[in-house]
Amino acid sequence: MEELPTDDAADLVAELPAGDREAVLEEITDRADVERLLKYPEDSAGGLMTANVVSVREDATVAEAMEAIRRQSEEDESQLYQVYSVDGQGTLHGIVPIARLIVSAPTKLVRDVMEQPIVQVQPQQDQEEVARLMARYNVAAVPVVDEAGKLLGRITFDDVVDVVEAETTEDILKFGGMEALDAPYLKVAFGRMVRKRAGWLAALFLGEMLTATAMAFFQEEIAKAVILALFVPLIISSGGNSGSQASTLVIRAMALGEVNLRDWWRVIRREVATGLVLGMVLGAIGFLRITLWHTITGIYGEHYLLVALTVFGSLIGVVTFGTIAGSLLPFVLRRLSFDPASASAPFVATLVDVTGLVIYFTVASVILRGTLL
Amino acid sequence: MEELPTDDAADLVAELPAGDREAVLEEITDRADVERLLKYPEDSAGGLMTANVVSVREDATVAEAMEAIRRQSEEDESQLYQVYSVDGQGTLHGIVPIARLIVSAPTKLVRDVMEQPIVQVQPQQDQEEVARLMARYNVAAVPVVDEAGKLLGRITFDDVVDVVEAETTEDILKFGGMEALDAPYLKVAFGRMVRKRAGWLAALFLGEMLTATAMAFFQEEIAKAVILALFVPLIISSGGNSGSQASTLVIRAMALGEVNLRDWWRVIRREVATGLVLGMVLGAIGFLRITLWHTITGIYGEHYLLVALTVFGSLIGVVTFGTIAGSLLPFVLRRLSFDPASASAPFVATLVDVTGLVIYFTVASVILRGTLL
Repeated sequence: MEELPTDDAADLVAELPAGDREAVLEEITDRADVERLLKYPEDSAGGLMTANVVSVREDATVAEAMEAIRRQSEEDESQLYQVYSVDGQGTLHGIVPIARLIVSAPTKLVRDVMEQPIVQVQPQQDQEEVARLMARYNVAAVPVVDEAGKLLGRITFDDVVDVVEAETTEDILKFGGMEALDAPYLKVAFGRMVRKRAGWLAALFLGEMLTATAMAFFQEEIAKAVILALFVPLIISSGGNSGSQASTLVIRAMALGEVNLRDWWRVIRREVATGLVLGMVLGAIGFLRITLWHTITGIYGEHYLLVALTVFGSLIGVVTFGTIAGSLLPFVLRRLSFDPASASAPFVATLVDVTGLVIYFTVASVILRGTLL
Repeated sequence: MEELPTDDAADLVAELPAGDREAVLEEITDRADVERLLKYPEDSAGGLMTANVVSVREDATVAEAMEAIRRQSEEDESQLYQVYSVDGQGTLHGIVPIARLIVSAPTKLVRDVMEQPIVQVQPQQDQEEVARLMARYNVAAVPVVDEAGKLLGRITFDDVVDVVEAETTEDILKFGGMEALDAPYLKVAFGRMVRKRAGWLAALFLGEMLTATAMAFFQEEIAKAVILALFVPLIISSGGNSGSQASTLVIRAMALGEVNLRDWWRVIRREVATGLVLGMVLGAIGFLRITLWHTITGIYGEHYLLVALTVFGSLIGVVTFGTIAGSLLPFVLRRLSFDPASASAPFVATLVDVTGLVIYFTVASVILRGTLL
C-alpha cells in the first residue's frame, strides 16, 4: 500500500469492507491525501487523480525545481511529465515540461520557462470529459485544481486510457443492443452471458410485439391484397436502417462534442431534409424493382403500377420518419439524463417498425382504394 | 517546415503535388529523415513516427545523457518523455525516463539507470496495433526499430490519440451502417452527407429486396392463413436483434484482442448454445403472448395453439440462426481481410431476414399442414 501512488491506494481502500478501512488508513503515511481522494466518486477527475505532484514556486530557479523532483522520488519517475508552479496559496500558475528543466540554464527562474496550463480540470468533472480534454489538447498529464484554482493533484494519460477503452466498449455494446460484459468475452460464464443478453433481447421483443398488433389491425387489407404482405419486411427494415444511421451519427457527434443539446433543432431540420432525399432514392429503387420484375414475371397483377406507387410513397414516409426518430432519440435520452448511446440500432428499429407498418398500410389504403382494397 | 517534427513534415510533403515535392525537400535540412518517413504508409508505425530521438550509448553517464538532450533542442520538449540507449550499431538496448536522469547521480552510467523496453514496434506495423500496445502497457512513447533492432524513431501518445479517435468513429459509424464522414457532423455539406449515407442504405435495400422474393414464394401460404403474416415482423426482427448482439460482441472482443481468428470454433460453439437458450426464452414469451391474447380477445381462431407453437419453434430457429450468423460474420470478414466492424447491425439484420422468413414458413408448413395450410 505504501508503494502505491495515492490514487491507486484510495481505490483499494474504497474496495475494503467499511470495518477494515480505519485499520488500513492508520498505517498509511499519506493518510490525509488518500482520505481526500476517497471523497470523490471513482469515475470523477478526483477519483482518477493522484495527489503526488511536484510543485515549486514561480520564483524558484530551474536548479531548485530539479531538486524538488529529487525529493519527491517515492513514485515511479516514468509517469512524471510535468512540474507545476504555484504561488504562496498553492494556486496553479504554470506548467514546466520535465525535459525543459534539463534544457534550460540552472539559474533561470521557473517563471521564465513555464507555460500557461492549456487544460486543467476540477475534481468533480466526469472522467470521460477529462479523457476528451486530454485527447483534444494532446497532453500526457493534466493538473486538477479546485474552484479557487488551488492545485490538488494530477491525472496522467495512462489513468485515462483504461477509462476511454471501457467507455468505448460500453458504448459499442449498447449500440449492438446489449449490456456491457464485465470481463473478456471468452471468460464470462455462460449463464451470466445469457442473462446479460436476454434482458435487452426480451425488452426489444416485447416492443416488437406491437407489430403483431398493428398487423392484426390491417388483417383485412392483407386478406384482400396478399401482395401487400410481400413488401412488409422491405419497408420496415428500410425505416430501421435509416433510423439507425441517423442515431449513430448523432450519438457519435455528441460523444465527440461536435453536437450539443441546444443543436437539436439544427440537427432535426437537417435530418428531415436528408430523410426525404434518402426516402426518394430508396423509393425510386423500389419502384423500379417492382415494375421491372413485373415486366419480366408478371407476378404482381394488373395493378402493379399502383402497388409500385404505394411502395414508393411508403418508403419516403418510412425513411423520413425513421431518420427523424433516429436523430431525435439521442437528444431525448440525453435530455432525460440517460446515455444517448442507448439509442442502439435494434432499439431504433423496434421503435420505427410499428410506425412503418402504419405508414405503409395508410398509404396503401389511399392509393389502392377502389382497386385492390 | 523547418520548425516541424520530421513526422509532420513528411505528412505535409506527402500531400504536395508530386512536382512541388522536390523543391520543398531541397530546402529541408533533415531531408534524409523526411524522405525515410515518406517511404512508409501514413497509417503504419513508420508513418506515425518522428525520427528526432535522443539516443545515447549505454556507457555514457547520466550527465552526458542530459547534455545530449540539450543538443537536441530543436523540438518541443513537452513531447520528450524518454531517452534511448543504443550500442555502436544503433541497436536499441534500453529506455531511460527523462525524470530518472534528474533523480539519478550525474556520474552514474546510463546502463545502470535504464530499463528494458517493454514495448517496441516495427515501422510496417499498423497504427491501430501501435495504439493498442501503448494503451495496454500505459506508455507515453514507444521506440520504433527495424528487424535488426536498430532504433529508427519514436511514436508519442499524442500521435496515437487521434488515430484511436478516428478509428473508433469509423467503427461506430460502420456499426450504424454507414461510411465514416470526413468532418464533424454539422460541417459536412448536405449533398456529401446524403451520398455517404445513400450508398450503404441502397446496398442494404437491395439485399432486403430478397425478402420480397422470399415472401412471394410463400404467397399461397399467406393467402390461406393471413394470420401467418401478422408475426412476420416480430420473427425476423428477433433474428436481426440477436444477430446484431452476437456480431457486436465478437467485433469488440476482436478489437480488444480478446478473441482471435483461431478462436472461431470456440466462439461458434458458445454462440450456438447461447442462441438456443435465447431462442427458447423469446419463443416462450411469444407463445405466452399468443395464447394469453387469444384467451382475452379470441382473434387467433381455433388453431391458435398451433399458431403459438409455430411462433415458438420459429423463434428458436431464427434466433439461433441469427446468433450463429452474427458471430460468424466478423470471422469471415476478417479472414477475407475486410474490417470485421463492417458486420453492422443493419448488415446482419438484412442477412438474417431472408433466412428468418424461410425458417418461419417452413416451420409453419410442418406444424400447420392439414389445419390452416
